[in-house]
Parts: sequence; structure tokens; C-alpha cells
Amino acid sequence: MQVALIGGGVIGGGWAGRFVENGIDVAVFDPHPEAERRVRETLENAERAWSRLTLAPRVRGAVTFSASLEDAVRDADLIQESAPEDEYVKRRVLAEIEAHAAAGALVCSSTSGLLPSRLQVDMRHPERFVVAHPFNPVYLLPLVELVAGERTSEDAVSRAVAVYESVGMRPLRVRHEIDGFVADRLLEALWREALWLVHDDVATVEEIDDAIRFGAGLRWAQMGTFLTYRIAGGEDGMRHFLAQFGPALAWPWTKLTDVPELTDELVERIAAQSDAQARGLSVRELERIRDDNLVALLQALRANRYGAGETLAAHEERLFAAPTRVAVDPERPVRLYECAVDPAWVDYNGHMTEARYGDVLAYATDAFLRHVGLDAAYLAGGHSAYTAETHIRYLREAAAFESLAVETQVLGADEKRLHLFHELRRVPGEEPLATGEHLLLHVDTEAGKVVPWREPLATAIRAAAEAHAALPRPEAAGRAVAEKPL
Amino acid sequence: MQVALIGGGVIGGGWAGRFVENGIDVAVFDPHPEAERRVRETLENAERAWSRLTLAPRVRGAVTFSASLEDAVRDADLIQESAPEDEYVKRRVLAEIEAHAAAGALVCSSTSGLLPSRLQVDMRHPERFVVAHPFNPVYLLPLVELVAGERTSEDAVSRAVAVYESVGMRPLRVRHEIDGFVADRLLEALWREALWLVHDDVATVEEIDDAIRFGAGLRWAQMGTFLTYRIAGGEDGMRHFLAQFGPALAWPWTKLTDVPELTDELVERIAAQSDAQARGLSVRELERIRDDNLVALLQALRANRYGAGETLAAHEERLFAAPTRVAVDPERPVRLYECAVDPAWVDYNGHMTEARYGDVLAYATDAFLRHVGLDAAYLAGGHSAYTAETHIRYLREAAAFESLAVETQVLGADEKRLHLFHELRRVPGEEPLATGEHLLLHVDTEAGKVVPWREPLATAIRAAAEAHAALPRPEAAGRAVAEKPL
Repeated sequence: MQVALIGGGVIGGGWAGRFVENGIDVAVFDPHPEAERRVRETLENAERAWSRLTLAPRVRGAVTFSASLEDAVRDADLIQESAPEDEYVKRRVLAEIEAHAAAGALVCSSTSGLLPSRLQVDMRHPERFVVAHPFNPVYLLPLVELVAGERTSEDAVSRAVAVYESVGMRPLRVRHEIDGFVADRLLEALWREALWLVHDDVATVEEIDDAIRFGAGLRWAQMGTFLTYRIAGGEDGMRHFLAQFGPALAWPWTKLTDVPELTDELVERIAAQSDAQARGLSVRELERIRDDNLVALLQALRANRYGAGETLAAHEERLFAAPTRVAVDPERPVRLYECAVDPAWVDYNGHMTEARYGDVLAYATDAFLRHVGLDAAYLAGGHSAYTAETHIRYLREAAAFESLAVETQVLGADEKRLHLFHELRRVPGEEPLATGEHLLLHVDTEAGKVVPWREPLATAIRAAAEAHAALPRPEAAGRAVAEKPL
Repeated sequence: MQVALIGGGVIGGGWAGRFVENGIDVAVFDPHPEAERRVRETLENAERAWSRLTLAPRVRGAVTFSASLEDAVRDADLIQESAPEDEYVKRRVLAEIEAHAAAGALVCSSTSGLLPSRLQVDMRHPERFVVAHPFNPVYLLPLVELVAGERTSEDAVSRAVAVYESVGMRPLRVRHEIDGFVADRLLEALWREALWLVHDDVATVEEIDDAIRFGAGLRWAQMGTFLTYRIAGGEDGMRHFLAQFGPALAWPWTKLTDVPELTDELVERIAAQSDAQARGLSVRELERIRDDNLVALLQALRANRYGAGETLAAHEERLFAAPTRVAVDPERPVRLYECAVDPAWVDYNGHMTEARYGDVLAYATDAFLRHVGLDAAYLAGGHSAYTAETHIRYLREAAAFESLAVETQVLGADEKRLHLFHELRRVPGEEPLATGEHLLLHVDTEAGKVVPWREPLATAIRAAAEAHAALPRPEAAGRAVAEKPL
């Protein structure tokens, strides 16, 4: 698949990150002289975020910057328009896209609120046009609102669903075409009220943000508003909640009958308060803080398989199910696992904690097991491999962001057991940071019994053990902790 | 400190959980016949949530249910009123509180929007009255809005800040007294727009929740709205963002010039859609899902020390700094660490992962080090203990929610090293689940060199090693992985 991105601003650059991190080649066209630099900076953020987001195997797509819109769209299967939010500009861009796009290409617009029926009005093939409205940062937030115009075909919507799901997103079909769709109506309502609070000097921008992020924001990140209120209604449920809180709707709590005018004075006040809130951090620094937090929140929800975490978990399952792309030389230790030290793995001593060394070595064991064929189908058959014993030697410290790799040697195997030796190294330089020696047992998970390996693992493990039988045994293998008493 | 809670609904019960989990005794008064049962259920939720939220040592406060308001408030230092949201009801309750409260007691109201100047109007000591508006679930969300009335003293506000911070909350001083304060103005604005979307059948309650939780909700959980938009403005900052998006404020995107009437038909539609969204889960089940997610989100942000995670981290530092309450018998292995298996620690095999055994054993090592005096001051002095080697034997599986305890034996120590042996057990039953043998080195963290233990650790470690010298050496100690080649 080849994607053309028309427009390389915050949204177009975010799309580039989303597609590239999921193995899809993109061609970007944006006439702005700074566009390439800005997109490349966003791509760096996306790469950094995804390297922390998932351990699943991925290949990266390639990015090209096209000299013309025609060059970008000519061979594209999907053309994503992210031009300025102006109906007439977008209609002109869409006409130019249609003039050069392949007949079967899907054409999507990132508009955050313009009606698809109006955007598609001049198109020769309006049936292939869908609004696909993402949220910043596009490479991390899973939501994409899909809105069909009057002349959009169901087939185009289905294709759009498939494409965005394949890059880990959560399409939300907006069933009725209205200005602002669903999400931005909600965001705008909150944003306008927030502007009134600043306008009336009730609160500063920082106080308003704090009123969200220490409270309701933590609810919105997982359940939204209606399910939250269902719970708040307690045992009596939603009807009770509405009966109890409905009257407050008529209270004079909001100024939204009126819209604050963005006078120079109000703009200046907001901007000055925003500068104070940012504490001198640049937008680039704020982006990275935001991305680190989003990664951590998505992973937190992944552990509970809930909301946006469920989207991530499902995407990872697809990625893990893809065939391993690592080339293995059977005559030497295999290198199946690489990662970077997440700053969250670093403790008060300033380096990766003991337990994270254990994690990384366990991930390397998982990578070896996947390599010899332990996949979802094998697990579903009621068998798995459990670690019975582990010996870790911590040799050197690892700091945040350092790149790590694990080389794995098979020390031995029999019909039910597997004996692995990992060396954890810093890259580049290949300096050893730790060694891990692990004994694994093959288990019938229902019966809770150790049983012989089944195919295809039995053959693959035997082959790996034979290939490594001639390798020198690592000096650290077979040793106990503190062999002489202290 | 003793707290009286007047009102035991969703908010009063949540306050009970917040205080009790942080070691404060509460007396609850609520005339509702079901109040005690409901509060006890909320206390169960709170205990479950806090046992997952933090490993910091805590004692639990006691709860009593008072037969009268007078009994509840008589000895209280803080009286928290969470009566129904009706100005006249609250004024009557506050009058009764004043009739029986001690002279120095602080009186706070949980009102979500009523003006403190009006609530305090009949009080004889209005200077000690503060609005302290929390967010559901009160035992997990850190935000509490503090609003002073015209006659509230600064001293009362300062005392309220100290009390709520001491139980891990994040007080937000609302500087201008307005209906709905800050947070509920924002929540109501979003909620009204959401009701319009359902009213006009643009989206169902589930679609609206999805439009939040897969997108902007993940931003609101950490940064709020203004800092998010500052970033979206890119390099050109907040002024640019306002110039670009300001005009959209005047677009006819919202129906908020008008308020939807909660007709029977609209209530029925919302309730039916809410039932569909809940997929048959009870409010109790939804509460636990919500709490698990909130715990995971708070912990995710704690790892980045950001927003609500920073609040949690700071609270834990205070808790860890408190003196250890565990009684130790020097003649037998010490039991310093207990926890429950978080469901997030369980993998596709249905039991606690290998790496989490490593975590739990590492936490037990941390607990031993804290026990012998390794605290923040010792670390700040530039010394720490690093694990050099670990040998783990995985003996039995542990399932989600099972209780675990670790018994620790000192195998030996010299002037720079410490050799520990942990046995991880299931409680009750004391069945061994794993053993861990660990060699620790004392390090000058600046120089990166192994150096002699400093006081008070040197003396405490020597004493512990001597006390355990006569204990039988565990059979599993001193062993290597797979001693015979496979």
C-alpha cells in the first residue's frame, strides 16, 4: 500500500508518523518551504513514541517528499488531504487530487468539521470520498471519525475502516453528517466555557487545565462521560442520575448563550498565562512530555484491555502474528530481541532497575519462543512454556534511552525442557550489561503438568540446540550466586 | 485526627475511603436506612483500589457509623458535609453541625456548585467554613476544589489545603466564587452538548463516550485543554493557535444557546442507550473496572512524575518516609513485604509472569534495605545498594488477586556486600511460590565504585547477619540453573 499525504502541517505530519511506524510508505506534498523539516521532526517524535509504545515487531515505511501534488498522488491507494480548514481551499485541492489520482484510489479528508457532502460536491467520483478526522498527535491517539457524504459509497467507508484499523486506529462511524461531527462539538463546548472562565478572570489557563487533569480528565481517558455518570448514579442507574442532576441544566452556570470575542486583550491574556504555564519549555519539549504520558496511559489501559488500550492490544496481536523478519545464523547466538530503555524503567539510582533487566531478559525468552513457533494457535492448543529457574548477573548500568540487544544461545534441550543463555548488550559497542540463564519447562496448561514439546516447537528446538551444541559454553553459565559464603 | 462525614452517599462514601485508606478514623452519619451498607461497599472498593495503587506502607483508619449527627461531629477535627445538593438543606445541616461541633473544628462542604458565601450566611463561625468539592470516585481522583466564602478566613483555607494534601489529594484554590466553580462549569458544558447530540440522534451515548475516550480524553488525563492547544499551535505557539481556530468559535456548531428539555422520551432514550452500553455489567462491576483503570492511569503518570502521577508520587514519598511499623524477630526470617497479585501482572498463561516474580522479589529487597535504614537521605548522600546477581526458582503459579508475602533471610554480609535469600509465599497457607537469592553491592553512585556500607546501614546489616547466622541455610541456596546439562 502507498499513501499520499497532501498537507504536511501538524495533522499531515502526524499521519506520516502513524503510517510510517506501521510499515506503510508515504509521499508527502506541501508547498510550504518549511514543510519537510517540520514533517521530519514529527516523524522523529513518532519513531520515539512507537519504540516505547510496543514491543511488537514492526517494519518502518519510507517517506518521500514530492515536488508536486501530481507526483505524490499518482501511485497512491489512499490520498489523505490535510489542507487548511477552509471549504473552498479543500474543494480546490480535492479537484486537483482527482485530476491525477488512480481510478481506484480512496480519497479521505482530515477536516475537523466541514461537511463531506459539501466537500465532495465538485468531485467526479464522489463515491470514493470519506471524511477521516484524526486527533493530534495522530501517531498516538487511536480515534478517527469517519463521516460519509450524501454521495459516498458504503464500500469506500468499509475500505477506510480497514485501512485505519490496520495502522492501529479506532474508527468511529459518525452516522449523521453535522458540522463539527461528534468529538469537536464536545471539545468546542468545553473550550468555549474555558475561554469564558479566562475572559472573566475566574481562573487562569493553568488552573483550568489542573481542574481537568487532576479530576474528570482521568475519567474521560477511559470511560467518557455517560458511562461515568451511569456509575455516579449508583445503584439507581442512569434514570436516577438524570432525575437528580437534570435540573442543574437550567441553572445559569454557563455563558454559552454568548460567545466571547477574542479581542487583542483576551488573546494577550491567554497567551501570557500559557507562557507562564509552559515554564519555559519549548513546544518540542512539551510534545515529548505529552507523548511519553500518552504512551504510558495507552500501556496502562492495555494491561486492563480497556478502551484505547484494547485498541492497542488488538493491533499488537496482529503485529505479533506477522511472520518474524529476523534472519538467523544457526552457527552463532541468535539476536531476536532489541529495545530501548524506557525512562519509566529508571529508578532513583538513575539507571534501569533490577526488575527491568528481568523483564528485558524475559522478553528475549518470549522472542526466542515465538521464533521457534510458539504463537497464539499453539497457546490456544493448551500448551505453553514456563520459566522454572533464572540466574541473572547484573554487570553494568543502563541509562534511559540507551539501545539494548539480547543475544541468545541454546545451552541444551530435551524432550520437555529448554536451557537458554542470554547476553544483554548495549548497542552500539556490544558492551555486555547482564547475563541471564534460564530453564524452561513445556507445560500442559490445563493439566498443569510438564509434557513433551509438540510440533512445530519440538523440531525447531531440537534443531536450534543441535546448531548451538558446538558453540563454546559461556563462562558465566552454570554458576551459583555468591559461590563462596560472605 | 478524627473526621466526621455527614452524608454517606456516593460522595460521602468516597470520602470515607479516601480518609480510611490514609490512616484517618471517620465517623459517618446518614439517616438513610441503606447508608451503612452502601458506605461499606464503597470502602471495599477503596481498599481494593489502594492495595493496587501503592506499595507504600499505610495503616487503615477505623470507621464508625453514628446514630446521630451530634455523635458524629462531637470529637471531630474536620467535618465534611456531603448532604443533598440543595442550598436550604445544606444550610440546615450546617446549622446542626455548628450546634454540636468543637470550637476549633474545620467545617467543609462537598457542594459541587453552591456558593460558600450563601451556605455560610447563617453560621455563627463562618470563618471556619470552606467548600471542598471532590470528584467521584473520591478515594482515587486527586482533585479537590477549595472555595472560600466572603467570611471564610485564610487560616481555614490553609488548614484545608494541609488536610487534603495529607491524604494524597491535589487542592485547587478557586480564587473567584462563582456557581459551579471551575471544574463543573467545564463538565456541564460538555455534558449539555452531549445531551443535544443524543437529543438530535446524531450519536448514541456509547458513540459519544468513544468519541472522548479514544481521543481527547487521553489528552485531558494529563495536560488539560490549554496546554494541549499550545502544542497543537506548533512552533508558532498560543497566539497562532488562537488566530487560526478563533474564528471557529463563531460557527454555528453548538446548540448551547438553548437547553434540551429532559422530556420522558429523552430520558428513556438515554437510559436505554446506557443499558446497551453497559453490556449487562452492574454498577458494582463497572466501578471496579473504572477503579482498575484509574489505578493504572495514575501509576502510568507516576512513572513519568506528571500531573496526577506527580501527586501520587509525592504522597508516596511521605508514606515511605514514615517509620516502618513491622515488628521483626531477629531469630527467624523477617517478613517485610506483602502484596496482592495485580491482574495486570497476569499473562496469556493466566498467571503471574516470570518478570513480575522478579519485581516482587526486588520489592522485597527494597523493603529489607529500607528496614536497615536505606532512606531518601542515605540515597541523597550519594550511596545506594545495587543487585549484582539474582537466582530465582519459580515453584508454583500465582493467580490474579492472590495475596503474597516474602520472608527474607540474610545468608551473609561483609563490609561491602549483602547476600539475601527470599521465599515468596502464598497467604494464607504459606505455600512457597518462588525463591530468590540475591547478591547486593554497596555503591558510591557518583564514583560508580563498590565501597563499604555507611551508617546506619553498616551496623544494622551486621546485626541482621549475626542474628541470622545460626539459621539453617535454605536447601535452594548456592545452586546453579540446570546443574546437569540437558
